[in-house]
Amino acid sequence: MTTFTFDKLVIFGVGLIGGSLARALRERDGAARGGRIVGVGRSRASAQRARELGIVDDVAGLDDDAELSAALAGADLVLLAAPVAQTQSLLERIVPFLDAETIVTDAGSTKSDVVAAARSALGARIAQFVPGHPIAGRESSGVEAALPDLYVGRNVVLCPLPENRPDDVARIEAMWRATGALLSAMSHEQHDQVFASVSHLPHLLSFALVERILSAPDAALKFSFAAGGFRDFTRIAASSPEMWRDVCLANRDALVDELDGYTAVLARLRAAIVAGDGATLEAVFARSREARSEWQERGGRAPK
Amino acid sequence: MTTFTFDKLVIFGVGLIGGSLARALRERDGAARGGRIVGVGRSRASAQRARELGIVDDVAGLDDDAELSAALAGADLVLLAAPVAQTQSLLERIVPFLDAETIVTDAGSTKSDVVAAARSALGARIAQFVPGHPIAGRESSGVEAALPDLYVGRNVVLCPLPENRPDDVARIEAMWRATGALLSAMSHEQHDQVFASVSHLPHLLSFALVERILSAPDAALKFSFAAGGFRDFTRIAASSPEMWRDVCLANRDALVDELDGYTAVLARLRAAIVAGDGATLEAVFARSREARSEWQERGGRAPK
Repeated sequence: MTTFTFDKLVIFGVGLIGGSLARALRERDGAARGGRIVGVGRSRASAQRARELGIVDDVAGLDDDAELSAALAGADLVLLAAPVAQTQSLLERIVPFLDAETIVTDAGSTKSDVVAAARSALGARIAQFVPGHPIAGRESSGVEAALPDLYVGRNVVLCPLPENRPDDVARIEAMWRATGALLSAMSHEQHDQVFASVSHLPHLLSFALVERILSAPDAALKFSFAAGGFRDFTRIAASSPEMWRDVCLANRDALVDELDGYTAVLARLRAAIVAGDGATLEAVFARSREARSEWQERGGRAPK
Repeated sequence: MTTFTFDKLVIFGVGLIGGSLARALRERDGAARGGRIVGVGRSRASAQRARELGIVDDVAGLDDDAELSAALAGADLVLLAAPVAQTQSLLERIVPFLDAETIVTDAGSTKSDVVAAARSALGARIAQFVPGHPIAGRESSGVEAALPDLYVGRNVVLCPLPENRPDDVARIEAMWRATGALLSAMSHEQHDQVFASVSHLPHLLSFALVERILSAPDAALKFSFAAGGFRDFTRIAASSPEMWRDVCLANRDALVDELDGYTAVLARLRAAIVAGDGATLEAVFARSREARSEWQERGGRAPK
């Protein structure tokens, strides 16, 4: 592994994702040799905790022009790690203070909306923005949950734009590689289709199952007999309502496509149940089980 | 706890469920004082393994009239722990050899179909049959997986029939209590609605998600980016295709009702997504998260 070298990294939103990047670059042996890491929060106070924990060197408040300007001056890298719905306003706030050589990336779990927001906010300077998505767990959140090894073996997807300079994309790749992550690239459209399918739709379905049970007059009785299958199936229904509201709306088109495709599968299974067609049910279940088992055996990771 | 006393228990299908009952009655301190436990398999050989493991005292082959007759003679209790689809043929095979005082119960995960099968097979002797459902994990199977503590703290639901003698129901209750299980009673119709909702539907939805992903031309790419949410959501898609085919068909009416109700929830969420109605999405997600968290905090068990 080549050591990743940087002068100044500015992280907007120092929580689990941003904090773990900072800790990885700082604490992983030989991974990176860096100058300063600056944390920026909506208020100065929210980034202050990260400095107390030794995760960032400096902090700046987003609302303070002088602090923001100082934070961004001479930065070679910027990471946006705030909720995706804030991307456009964040970039609009940043762009007046952004050096021409600074590369900006993000960590949003949807990408087409982020690209649209970035194009709107950055205009002709869109080449400086390299969209990214580190796939890391979100059960816990906040900078206290940040870990130097959060990204080891995890996928990070970049969705480079036609305007991006290849060297800039390579820099962002190298930064994430230094955290131990596995890098992939795809278009933002493909990214959003893939994650609508394997992440956003399952979350929606899980929330919907609990909602369905709640709507029954005997909901309490039903919950009282829910067991391990229910527990696993609905674990992701404990996720943040705000975050998943934003994801559903941000990735609306791809998610609705996936939902319609899924509803069509349910309609086929319903027809088989009504017709007493055990052969179709068994064939679908067996195919699903086999694919799921193969996925599990591969370690649930991207083939390399 | 009162010690449960029995003379002879005959178990049809000595696998995880039947084997664990036998081990619980034998091995849990002071739980039961019993005579003999007899295992009956489709062939003599399949029950033989249970005897080698010391789980049953005697074995009998289902196909051998003399053995079956000897096995059932003087039995006070019979447990059917074979796949539910075999209930009727099993009872038809047993009934000629069944003493008038023997109480028969079962362990099937659907109940209305089992009751119908029992009525058909037992006719006027239906009073001898007390339908039951121990809610115990099925990830592993076979008598080797049987555990004396499998039922500790687990729910066992009985669905007594109007014809059952209260003393007989109390005997079956006492037997399961001796295993450490928590007993509940409800009608077989209510049982099937409850489990359609919290168990059968989630399994169907989980299989359907994998099927949906498999149907995409870029299925391999999608699987390669599936992460923890997908893992939890689809764990139950690794369940037995044959068993779930049978469950779906056996509990057809309640399952189709649940599926239709669930599809209606999905339609509401789809409309909210298309309309950009974040407030509705967030309200549903927040309500689901709260209910799911409360369930988790109660330990995912029946309130007592």
